[in-house]
Amino acid sequence: MTLLVSGWVALDEIETPVSRVEESLGGSATCAALAATHFTDVRLLAAVGEDFPTAERIKMEGRGIDLKGLRTIEGGQTSRWGARYSSDMNTRDTLYTHLGVNAAWNPTLPKTWENSSTAFMAAGEPATQIALLEALTSPRATMVDTIQIYINTARQDVIAAMQQADFVSVNETEARQLTGKAGIAKAGQALLETGMHAAIIKLGEYGAVYASRDDYFVAPGYPLKNVVDPTGAGDTFAGAFLGYLDTVEINPAEVRRAMIYGSTIASFAVEGFGPSRLLDLTHDEVEQRFKEFHLLTSFKEVK
Amino acid sequence: MTLLVSGWVALDEIETPVSRVEESLGGSATCAALAATHFTDVRLLAAVGEDFPTAERIKMEGRGIDLKGLRTIEGGQTSRWGARYSSDMNTRDTLYTHLGVNAAWNPTLPKTWENSSTAFMAAGEPATQIALLEALTSPRATMVDTIQIYINTARQDVIAAMQQADFVSVNETEARQLTGKAGIAKAGQALLETGMHAAIIKLGEYGAVYASRDDYFVAPGYPLKNVVDPTGAGDTFAGAFLGYLDTVEINPAEVRRAMIYGSTIASFAVEGFGPSRLLDLTHDEVEQRFKEFHLLTSFKEVK
Repeated sequence: MTLLVSGWVALDEIETPVSRVEESLGGSATCAALAATHFTDVRLLAAVGEDFPTAERIKMEGRGIDLKGLRTIEGGQTSRWGARYSSDMNTRDTLYTHLGVNAAWNPTLPKTWENSSTAFMAAGEPATQIALLEALTSPRATMVDTIQIYINTARQDVIAAMQQADFVSVNETEARQLTGKAGIAKAGQALLETGMHAAIIKLGEYGAVYASRDDYFVAPGYPLKNVVDPTGAGDTFAGAFLGYLDTVEINPAEVRRAMIYGSTIASFAVEGFGPSRLLDLTHDEVEQRFKEFHLLTSFKEVK
Repeated sequence: MTLLVSGWVALDEIETPVSRVEESLGGSATCAALAATHFTDVRLLAAVGEDFPTAERIKMEGRGIDLKGLRTIEGGQTSRWGARYSSDMNTRDTLYTHLGVNAAWNPTLPKTWENSSTAFMAAGEPATQIALLEALTSPRATMVDTIQIYINTARQDVIAAMQQADFVSVNETEARQLTGKAGIAKAGQALLETGMHAAIIKLGEYGAVYASRDDYFVAPGYPLKNVVDPTGAGDTFAGAFLGYLDTVEINPAEVRRAMIYGSTIASFAVEGFGPSRLLDLTHDEVEQRFKEFHLLTSFKEVK
C-alpha cells in the first residue's frame, strides 16, 4: 500500500505575531506527505531547484518518504512563498509567491508509480491533476485539492478534476466559490450535485465536515491552546486522511475515522512552523489525541 | 421544577433575502422561554406595552408559559427591533432598536417566584441580572447572557454577573471582547480564568463549545439546509439548555446532553421567523433530531 502525493515542495518565509522563520520547509505536497508517513508508505512527486537544501531532503527521507519523484530542475529555483499572519492568526497576507521551478514543471507519473494504491493531488493545474489520476492503474482512493487561483482561472477544469476523484478537499471559501452557496451543508450538497463523489470542507478552528450521498459527518475542532503556525494544516489533514485510508478497507466507518486522524495530525501540525512538528510526532501521541477527539463530542444518547 | 426566564419580549421587523415579517413575536426572553417549554415549566419575567397583541400572549400561554411576570406598562410601547440580513444570511444590519418600555423598566422578582429551580438571565443590565440571581432562594442552575452594548458600557458589571452564574452564554465575538483572546479554546479558558464557572461559546453554523474546569465539549453544527431566520438562535439554545437541565440531575454527562438539546431546538428555530417554529414543534421531532446529532459526530474509537 502506497500513497502518491503530487504538489509543491517550497521554502517558506512565515511571520506570526510572536515569531518568524525563513527558508523553512513547506509546500502543499511536503505537508501532506509528512502527515501521511504516520500511517503508510509515501511517494512524493514534486520539483525543486538546485538550491533545495540537502538537509530538508534528509528530513523527508528520515520519515521514509520515497523521493524518487522529487525532481531537481537544473538551474532552477525552488518555489518560495512568504506570508504574514494577523495579530489574531485568523487572516494572513501573502507577501510573495515565487513560482520558481513550478512555473514550468509538468509532472508525469513514473511508470513504476502507476500502481500507487491511493493518491493525493494537492493544489495544482487541474489538467495535470487529471492526467496523473488517469495514469494510475487501480487506485483505491484519490483526492483532489485546489486553491483560489485555479478556481478563478480554470473553474471548469477544477470541477472536472474533482469529479474524477473519490474525495475533494476544499475550505469554506473555496466551497462557496465553487457552488455559489453560503452555508456549509448547502455548499456540501451543491458540490455533490456538481458531480463530486464526496466533499471534505475544512473549517479551520471549527473542524471539518464530510459530505457524501450516504453520509454527513462533523469532525470537531480540537481545542488548540498554542497555535504557532496554521500554514499547511489543510494539506496535512488531507495527507493524514488518505494515509490512514490507504491502510484499511474503505467504508463509511473508516472514512469517519480517517476524518479524525486527519484532524488529529493537523492539530499537531499547527503547533510548529510548517510541517516541522510532524517530523518527531510519535505513534503514541497520535493515538492519544485520537482518543481525545472521541471525548470531545461523545454524549449519551439514551438517558 | 420551574425555569425563570428574564429578558425582553419584543415585536420584530426582519428582512431576509427571500422574505420579511413585521410586528413579529420576538425578543430574547420570548425565544428562550418558548424553547424551554419543550422540557419544563417556564416563568417569564418581562415587560411589554399596551400595544402588545393579545394573540401573541395567547401563543405563549398556549405553550404553558406562566405570564404572571409579563408586566404591561400603562401607556408604554412594546420594544421594537428591525434588522435586515445580508444575501448569505451571515451578517445583518440593525435598522432600529426602539427600547420602548424596556428603557425604564427595572424587573424585580415576584416573591412567589423566588423558588424557581433554574434561571436564565437573557441580555440586560448586569446589575439587574445580579439582583434577580440574588433573589433566588436555592437555584440549581443559572445562566447569564449578554450583548455587545453591555460589554462596551458596563464591562466589569457584566463580568460580575457572569461570575455569579453557573453558566455563561456568549457568542464568539463576545467571548473575544470579554477576554481579548482570539481562538475558541483560548477564549474559553480565559473566561474561566476570569472567574466564570462554565462558558458556552455559541458558534452559529459551526455549533457550540462548552468549557469548564472539568470538561470541554463540542456540539456539532447541524446541517441546516433551509435557514429562514437565524434571529434568536442563541437565546433559543440557552432556553432549551437550561430547560432540559431543569429536569435532570446536573452532572457533566447531562450538561453534554443539554448542549445537544440546546443545539437541537435552535436548529429547528432557524427554520422559521423568530421563535415561530417552536410553537408547533413536537416531542417526536425533537427526539428524532437529538438522535441525528448523535450520528453527526460518532465514530468508532477502536478498530
